[in-house]
Amino acid sequence: MSDAAPRRRGRPRRSPDDAGPGARERILQAARDEFAERGYDKTSVRGIAKAAGVDAALVHHYFGTKDDVFAAAIEMSFEPALVLPAVLGQGKDGIGERLARYFIGVWENPATRAPLLAVVRSALTNETAAKVLRTFVLRRLLERIAAELDVPDPTFRAELAASHMVGIAILRYVIKAEPLASVDPEKIIEMVAPTLQRYLTEA
Amino acid sequence: MSDAAPRRRGRPRRSPDDAGPGARERILQAARDEFAERGYDKTSVRGIAKAAGVDAALVHHYFGTKDDVFAAAIEMSFEPALVLPAVLGQGKDGIGERLARYFIGVWENPATRAPLLAVVRSALTNETAAKVLRTFVLRRLLERIAAELDVPDPTFRAELAASHMVGIAILRYVIKAEPLASVDPEKIIEMVAPTLQRYLTEA
Repeated sequence: MSDAAPRRRGRPRRSPDDAGPGARERILQAARDEFAERGYDKTSVRGIAKAAGVDAALVHHYFGTKDDVFAAAIEMSFEPALVLPAVLGQGKDGIGERLARYFIGVWENPATRAPLLAVVRSALTNETAAKVLRTFVLRRLLERIAAELDVPDPTFRAELAASHMVGIAILRYVIKAEPLASVDPEKIIEMVAPTLQRYLTEA
Repeated sequence: MSDAAPRRRGRPRRSPDDAGPGARERILQAARDEFAERGYDKTSVRGIAKAAGVDAALVHHYFGTKDDVFAAAIEMSFEPALVLPAVLGQGKDGIGERLARYFIGVWENPATRAPLLAVVRSALTNETAAKVLRTFVLRRLLERIAAELDVPDPTFRAELAASHMVGIAILRYVIKAEPLASVDPEKIIEMVAPTLQRYLTEA
């Protein structure tokens, strides 16, 4: 045994230095997987730590409470969304189609779909998760998009566009209502683009 | 003690005749409340029976399995939606606004909002619940609406309209994203009506 003697409850505990390189990223990845698989209620800091191969204290050390880990995991899941202002920032022409195409692309890709689905599920079934989404992530994201828009009530407009996209994702990928679940993505983009164009550009 | 001697596990069990008038309705109401409060996973036939003041066997007698009770409870929650074809059937002019106004009205009313929310929550977190919603309720409802429309792919069009409404409900009433959560309903109707009008009427 090294000098890192067991603390609390007699179990050996690794210090942050012992956890090896990339421990923070490993925890975050494990957190994302756990929240995606189990949902907010059933995920614990202990379970995340176990999946990441670290001590629970290290999770607290890096992130704080379960809510804080959730917020960090959500932020990672929304990373593709951070390029949204760039998608929107190429001028008004075709902004609706660019947004629809970008959004459908994110949801068509299983790697980016799973964590987003986990966030939506958690927020729909747990008020704490809803609050984290609303306060930490959604507000910042919507404000960033709104800043790119030249319309009255830009945040409200961004929310209308987002609501349509979220609803399509739920009916297509979760409820799997036909024919929407099987239709060619291009058909969805073609129909939805003019709607988003109007919300984001017309006074 | 009467002749109705205790059966199974020594507890007295009421027969269907003992359950009194309105037992079926009481069970259905209890089921709706239980699913709304606990979600699909945590709701049991036993719990529904207890809330309705009847024996679990009576629930099975009237409805069958937990899935069957869920389907019946969903149907009851969607009853307001059964007038939808009437809302849609008054001609093309203003169909988008009528639909938006009707939908927002249902969601603004807490009595009709709670059970719908329960259905959405259950379907998002449980594949069995999603299948019941998709198979029993949504398909019939969408087909009824589609029958009123004179556009290509009417069911797809109805789903696009429904997806927008579902997304607004989630952002406004569940996530409570501002400003959408607090905005005057008339402002939502004004913005969304032209979208629904296009989906439901334009070739």
